[in-house]
Amino acid sequence: MAMLKFKHNGVIIDRIIDITELALRDAHQSLIATRLGIDDMTGACEELDTAGYWSIECWGGATYDACIRYLNEDPWERLRTFKKLMPKTPLQMLLRGQNLLGYRHYQDEVVERFCRKSAENGIDVFRIFDALNDLRNIETSVRAVKAAGGHAQGTISYTVSPIHTTALFVDQARRLQEMGVDSICIKDMAALIKPQAAYDLVKGIKEACGPELRVHLHVHATTGVTLVSLMKAVEAGIDCVDTAISTMSLGPGHNPTESFIEMLEGTGFSTRVDMEKVLRVKSYFTNVLGRYHEFQSQVTGVETEIFKSQIPGGMLSNMESQLRQQGAGDRMKEVLEEIPIVRKDTGYVPLVTPSSQIVGTQAVLNVLMGRYKVLTGEFADLMLGYYGEGPGEKNREVVEMSRAHAKKEPITCRPADLLKPEWDKLRAEALALPGCNGTDEDVLTYAMFPQVAPKFFADRHEGPRNLGKDPVTGVSETTPAEGHQGAITGPITYSVTLSGHHHKVTVAPYQ
Amino acid sequence: MAMLKFKHNGVIIDRIIDITELALRDAHQSLIATRLGIDDMTGACEELDTAGYWSIECWGGATYDACIRYLNEDPWERLRTFKKLMPKTPLQMLLRGQNLLGYRHYQDEVVERFCRKSAENGIDVFRIFDALNDLRNIETSVRAVKAAGGHAQGTISYTVSPIHTTALFVDQARRLQEMGVDSICIKDMAALIKPQAAYDLVKGIKEACGPELRVHLHVHATTGVTLVSLMKAVEAGIDCVDTAISTMSLGPGHNPTESFIEMLEGTGFSTRVDMEKVLRVKSYFTNVLGRYHEFQSQVTGVETEIFKSQIPGGMLSNMESQLRQQGAGDRMKEVLEEIPIVRKDTGYVPLVTPSSQIVGTQAVLNVLMGRYKVLTGEFADLMLGYYGEGPGEKNREVVEMSRAHAKKEPITCRPADLLKPEWDKLRAEALALPGCNGTDEDVLTYAMFPQVAPKFFADRHEGPRNLGKDPVTGVSETTPAEGHQGAITGPITYSVTLSGHHHKVTVAPYQ
Repeated sequence: MAMLKFKHNGVIIDRIIDITELALRDAHQSLIATRLGIDDMTGACEELDTAGYWSIECWGGATYDACIRYLNEDPWERLRTFKKLMPKTPLQMLLRGQNLLGYRHYQDEVVERFCRKSAENGIDVFRIFDALNDLRNIETSVRAVKAAGGHAQGTISYTVSPIHTTALFVDQARRLQEMGVDSICIKDMAALIKPQAAYDLVKGIKEACGPELRVHLHVHATTGVTLVSLMKAVEAGIDCVDTAISTMSLGPGHNPTESFIEMLEGTGFSTRVDMEKVLRVKSYFTNVLGRYHEFQSQVTGVETEIFKSQIPGGMLSNMESQLRQQGAGDRMKEVLEEIPIVRKDTGYVPLVTPSSQIVGTQAVLNVLMGRYKVLTGEFADLMLGYYGEGPGEKNREVVEMSRAHAKKEPITCRPADLLKPEWDKLRAEALALPGCNGTDEDVLTYAMFPQVAPKFFADRHEGPRNLGKDPVTGVSETTPAEGHQGAITGPITYSVTLSGHHHKVTVAPYQ
Repeated sequence: MAMLKFKHNGVIIDRIIDITELALRDAHQSLIATRLGIDDMTGACEELDTAGYWSIECWGGATYDACIRYLNEDPWERLRTFKKLMPKTPLQMLLRGQNLLGYRHYQDEVVERFCRKSAENGIDVFRIFDALNDLRNIETSVRAVKAAGGHAQGTISYTVSPIHTTALFVDQARRLQEMGVDSICIKDMAALIKPQAAYDLVKGIKEACGPELRVHLHVHATTGVTLVSLMKAVEAGIDCVDTAISTMSLGPGHNPTESFIEMLEGTGFSTRVDMEKVLRVKSYFTNVLGRYHEFQSQVTGVETEIFKSQIPGGMLSNMESQLRQQGAGDRMKEVLEEIPIVRKDTGYVPLVTPSSQIVGTQAVLNVLMGRYKVLTGEFADLMLGYYGEGPGEKNREVVEMSRAHAKKEPITCRPADLLKPEWDKLRAEALALPGCNGTDEDVLTYAMFPQVAPKFFADRHEGPRNLGKDPVTGVSETTPAEGHQGAITGPITYSVTLSGHHHKVTVAPYQ
């Protein structure tokens, strides 16, 4: 009954769609504030490695930060552990271009050393993005990754605005191709990409760049529509999609790996992923989220209001807390109306780290103090070009205010071109810290997290701290979350968050 | 850029897709064990009524049962309240054909009176199904609904088996059309329909029955793939889909209304539903699930294992509890393997009330006592034709065992043809009960729920009981769940369920 098939252009397609598994990086970053400890991951690695994924995403800025800030884990050691346990499947990381995993631009030599060391320690695929889609901010890392033998994936930070047309993004893909990337990623961190938009964009990139250039699609699940967008991307020719094992999915996280595999049945598309192994990984992670309950995202269902406000869930809760600190918790609605105005003034920057924080904070200040009466240094820098340039036109009046406020001239060059060589200075400072082991890896930790590294170096010898707690007893433990449903014998206290209020809760047997 | 459109056959389509809202019936039945009280619904009615839905589903077997069993609410009074508050949008109910809302077959006069009374009290659209897809079990209600001026929707209980092909279901749709139904519903209660299957089936029905016969699609969200199936159904020509407001959706429930509306943007398809009103309904229901926490389904994420086991979530937890009562909680795996065998022996009945309970219980007995060593009366009746006939061939050996066990002959006639007139007897029995008000509505309550009706008639004067509790204080209340986040002043105790264990939990301020 070929006439009943919905195949595009009537063609019966028989094509493999690859999958990148997100459980070990973005899934727990989105769902439990990046707190997942290495002990809660190692037991899944063999199944993950042999399940047939195109890659396993397992490293990035927030995981690196959480390792040294909360978990007393050396992120490089974590990476080596992953490589040892998953030798077959390419390991993937998310890299903020010239920012590396930190919050400022680094001089090219630092970028080059970071990419080389990451490849040496186990990263195979580098997904490289810039918040403003300024390709000058990713060219050094693309070059360095390729020099180190890695796969350089050039990224489009997806957003929706009057200037962000399909044609604009397709043009960005072509420029990334000219730069020499090995593949393209469409990165939709706020779950904004709707089915038709996904179809049009993937199709457009494939037509402009040719069928050989791989296109990957990264989407979150927050708005509830993006599994449909993945289906449409498949029909349009996508090569690989990002999903997360079901027990580590949905809400502000991603679409479930199992659902993606199952939904392709009968369509002529299929994956290489072994469902039996995936279900064993699911079983492994079944209790993990519960053990990190205190870190769990408040958002669990879908939130379609994001389509209007453009504000990702994480940004929303940040702003609410900023407002409450100022005793202005009741002015959230004004802030939500101010954000699109501020974003427009910046030339419609995509809202992703760090631009989301910069725009959100400025909107809060505008509401509390009057529009642009007070500017943050970061906002002025953004307006003056110190984060790079986006495709949109900025409000010239606000640029002028920024110049006056920051007492700095606007720039049009690549921001990193203003930086002097800094590696030797960073190295000297790092090596002076007690506990620094003298490696380039430690220098990079210090370079990217100068506030956090000293304490981490000093405490590192104590070994990893697992923050998972038994969901019933509330007791921390270091073994994976299996078989912890035994009877409790007396009242036990732990903290829970209900409707944003923290409570100390005592649990005792009921029957 | 028309060439970038994914439109079927290259046609740019501009078509309205209708929506049936499930919040007031199946959503809370699936998510909080049907416990939602009328006080937690009335405040949303005006927005629901004017939002532009094709229909509002608000009545059915489980809601009727819960009204008289738990909520001390007269289900007919609830219906009249809905009609008063929602005069514009058609009200819809789910009807189990010859079973009405009970668990046995009723003689035709009872069926006719029920349909007439339901229409008189406010039901406009009757979705009529039979668990076995035996159309003889729905013909009386279809006729009665049409006689009462209602919209009779003939239903296909969707399932997956070697005999349940697209062609078989399309043939069923044609037979429903010949019976004179006003529309067809594909009812996928276990979230089994995958995108391609949904496309093929909708397309097949439209081609066989013509474009004028409306086709509706009802899916649950449990497996995570069915929003994609809705998209494919839209492309294949579906007229109306069922969704639930986002704060009452997902898990064992349904796809979020807002996500369905949003995902159509740019596709050439759209809805008539006013998003602003939908978001106000969302806001109204925001805290409702939390207030019914003790009734909340344990299943919250997606469960793709259902594709293999075919066992809906509710059935699974029932069987687990049956096994535990027998001290055989460790034999679940064997039962899961036994169910497909039992189901095959029945001729692959769809697993939906009451067949799901019958097959599940027999599988448990087979594991505990040896295969078919003990038969339930219901299972024997199913094998002997007393529930009607499905399209599959039954295991003749098991039919013989059933005949020997039940000491009854197999039948091939319509089961209700064996019933004698019973209305007068039911009426006399009902009127003898203290508190019975003498109406046909009360007689029907007694006819369908003879065990529960007496107590309900006696207690009815006490008025509705709202089982919702403040999520923080644990105190029952009768007003809608808004503004209950005030400070608590002392330790307060309520019960929670963690990993299936019940606990008494004491909550006290933390900071």
